[in-house]
Amino acid sequence: MNRLMILYTLGKMLMIEGLLMLLPFLTGVIYQEQECWIYLIVAMMLLVLGHLMSLRKPHNKIIYAKEGFVVVAAAWIFLSVFGAIPFCMTGEIPSYIDALFEAVSGFTTTGSSILTDVESLSHASLFWRSFSHWIGGMGILVFVVAFLPDASGSTLHILKAEMPGPIVGKLVSKITVSSRILYQIYTVLTIIEVVLLMLGGMPFFDSLLNSFGTAGTGGFAIKNTSIAYYNSAYCDGIITFFMILFGINFNLIYFFAIKKFKAALKSEELRWYLIIIFAAAFAISFNILPLYNSIFEAFRYAIFQVGSIITTTGYVTADYGQWPLFSQTILVLLMFIGASAGSTGGGMKVSRIIIGVKSAMAEMKRMIHPHSVVSVKFEDKYLSSNTLSNIHVYWVLYFLLFGLSFLFVSLQNIDFISAFSAVATCFNNVGPGLGIVGPVGNFSSLTDLSKVVLSLDMLAGRLEIFPLLMFFSRSLWKK
Amino acid sequence: MNRLMILYTLGKMLMIEGLLMLLPFLTGVIYQEQECWIYLIVAMMLLVLGHLMSLRKPHNKIIYAKEGFVVVAAAWIFLSVFGAIPFCMTGEIPSYIDALFEAVSGFTTTGSSILTDVESLSHASLFWRSFSHWIGGMGILVFVVAFLPDASGSTLHILKAEMPGPIVGKLVSKITVSSRILYQIYTVLTIIEVVLLMLGGMPFFDSLLNSFGTAGTGGFAIKNTSIAYYNSAYCDGIITFFMILFGINFNLIYFFAIKKFKAALKSEELRWYLIIIFAAAFAISFNILPLYNSIFEAFRYAIFQVGSIITTTGYVTADYGQWPLFSQTILVLLMFIGASAGSTGGGMKVSRIIIGVKSAMAEMKRMIHPHSVVSVKFEDKYLSSNTLSNIHVYWVLYFLLFGLSFLFVSLQNIDFISAFSAVATCFNNVGPGLGIVGPVGNFSSLTDLSKVVLSLDMLAGRLEIFPLLMFFSRSLWKK
Repeated sequence: MNRLMILYTLGKMLMIEGLLMLLPFLTGVIYQEQECWIYLIVAMMLLVLGHLMSLRKPHNKIIYAKEGFVVVAAAWIFLSVFGAIPFCMTGEIPSYIDALFEAVSGFTTTGSSILTDVESLSHASLFWRSFSHWIGGMGILVFVVAFLPDASGSTLHILKAEMPGPIVGKLVSKITVSSRILYQIYTVLTIIEVVLLMLGGMPFFDSLLNSFGTAGTGGFAIKNTSIAYYNSAYCDGIITFFMILFGINFNLIYFFAIKKFKAALKSEELRWYLIIIFAAAFAISFNILPLYNSIFEAFRYAIFQVGSIITTTGYVTADYGQWPLFSQTILVLLMFIGASAGSTGGGMKVSRIIIGVKSAMAEMKRMIHPHSVVSVKFEDKYLSSNTLSNIHVYWVLYFLLFGLSFLFVSLQNIDFISAFSAVATCFNNVGPGLGIVGPVGNFSSLTDLSKVVLSLDMLAGRLEIFPLLMFFSRSLWKK
Repeated sequence: MNRLMILYTLGKMLMIEGLLMLLPFLTGVIYQEQECWIYLIVAMMLLVLGHLMSLRKPHNKIIYAKEGFVVVAAAWIFLSVFGAIPFCMTGEIPSYIDALFEAVSGFTTTGSSILTDVESLSHASLFWRSFSHWIGGMGILVFVVAFLPDASGSTLHILKAEMPGPIVGKLVSKITVSSRILYQIYTVLTIIEVVLLMLGGMPFFDSLLNSFGTAGTGGFAIKNTSIAYYNSAYCDGIITFFMILFGINFNLIYFFAIKKFKAALKSEELRWYLIIIFAAAFAISFNILPLYNSIFEAFRYAIFQVGSIITTTGYVTADYGQWPLFSQTILVLLMFIGASAGSTGGGMKVSRIIIGVKSAMAEMKRMIHPHSVVSVKFEDKYLSSNTLSNIHVYWVLYFLLFGLSFLFVSLQNIDFISAFSAVATCFNNVGPGLGIVGPVGNFSSLTDLSKVVLSLDMLAGRLEIFPLLMFFSRSLWKK
């Protein structure tokens, strides 16, 4: 284990977090809020701490798979642990466990909140909350790799562990360049969304923060009624479009950007992702029709909620807790499916579902013809048995951890649907669930134990289980 | 596809069903019930039909994997479709869909019922209901193989498809002998339970039918309040013991019977099965302590419900719908875990859970050391990559089908927990769920669509998904 290199990378990461924290400080300065000084103090602290940690430059910069997992897990834990401090110090979220839940929810782009009145927050804290979505969406270490290439050795192992999806594709041969392109696309698209929302009459501050939440597929609202507050079909439409866009593999967005439309459009995952979205939206539209004035109105709310849940954003324009069971079940299933691999979204990812179905069909063929060789093709490539086994085991682990988390959360004597959906929404990085944690509820009434378990679920979901689990496994740390 | 052999085997199976149906006829004769003649008529019809189907004796008796799956799936569908007829013809269950649900629930040893007043049934029908558990528990084709060896060609493929669990072990080298031993153990244990229950003061008829339900891990009650009706700590204890016993792999019970205690006790699955049962029972006992007078009383009800649910029997002595969420969650998770492979119980089976956990640990090792060879050991044997892949894909298919069934059942606008637990309890062959299908409820208020979906779930659960899915897949039937 190359401990020096791990320490060094974590130090650089903390320094970047410190620098990023200057933005909420500036926000506070602009809005003349006392809270801004807290952000300055914590930013300075992070810069000093990060500097101390990266004082000793390692000679051996090689990062193997092992170190990759440790760095990523540790980075995300550090990011959240320190990112929570300002919420606590400003007194806006007095309990540190609550502040940590909020920070983890931010960075993992979940969007579940323990706040009962988000509108009472300072602009600085509102900014930091939403900005954490933006940072976490693309990945903090992707950022480190992109802009501090010498801070990370064999960076592929870091990206593999941090990027969502079963298979990591590179845009161009050099990883640092790839990462920079990803961040460029990410930034440009975010800016376009801000401008389009402002054209709809949304104030600049709101447009910016809501775009951070869309781009990272986070979903922290800055109004108590989430996006429903704006009550604008135009803004709903823009946000719906961008939510769905940010749930697409960024490699495909890059292909679109460089006008390789054919390559982008033949993606199996994209096709199924869109089929699922529209099928779900139409099914819900007809199911909720009696509750709305027209099929158009029903569709407007259906497609927003579908886009929000499948991309695991979590913005809300309608209280789907009042919708019929069929619509609610569709939304719960979408939570599990999640967005595309290589996007900022969470969940199991459409590709893992497709490969799961194909594996099942292949296995049945093999059972019928025991001596035949059966293989699974995805995106026009045959999957190796290692890749397949990894994806299958992901399914197994996913449901094992889901069951275990559900057990812990139900130690608190709430209702079944609230406990179940709390785990589903946190593990899949969605945001709202059903029952007391539903679209008009929040996570404030949960016990500290539940909040800690759900925080771990959010991290496990964002890092796709393995890195976090390995971080806590003894065998990794053995010499 | 050896269609003639399939037809021949199905014919023999129907003849056996006809013969078995003479028992409820005799029951009806003893109790002087009109309903008995219906059972005689249907029995005759089955004997004639079965005879006609098996008139042409096939020269080629070879059954490959393919035919094995078809025979098993078809046999179970036929068994249920014909087994439902008497319920309908006696007028006790007027709707055929309801009668089919009840018959499928019986043969698959689920025990979910659409009856609101089971005590109003004739003795003949009560007998047939509970006896169907006993037939389905060990498997109808195991019976055919055991007692009509010439009716089935290469019988291993049939047993593989009908016996629960990922790996089929043979007791002795000859399969027909193995099957006969299984049925002998099954019969002897059932008789012992009957005698022990009668010693506790339970009438003979009740003892017999409750023992059928225990042995097959079925759970159809003959009283509206299930086993709670007898309100006897002794009977609760006997039934608890036998439920847990019938959830053990019969190969191990055979080892016990021939006094190979060491071989039996070193079974990993048995160890974990017992650990889970006692851990769950103790956890629930403490959780429900405030509801009962003493820890002993709490434990009595906890261990009964735990034994009943994990073995997927479904008998009830307490309304666990009133227990705290933590206890309910434990019970729901036990539904999924299920009993041991090679037992009469359903669910995913303890062995698939153990192998799932071990695969996950192995996969993590492989990810940390990409070039190492990692293998999974179970019951002191290394598992082949084919076996592992089959078990992993089972997990994948399991949750895919679960989600799909849940979606269909939620077309009926009931509450989340009722719909969710209805699928969980049927797919795992348990019996009662939560909410309206809870321990004091029943399935009568579900729509016909839900009943059909849940019937398919029960069959898929009992046959462990693959045979039923293949039966409905086009590729199997292609020449």
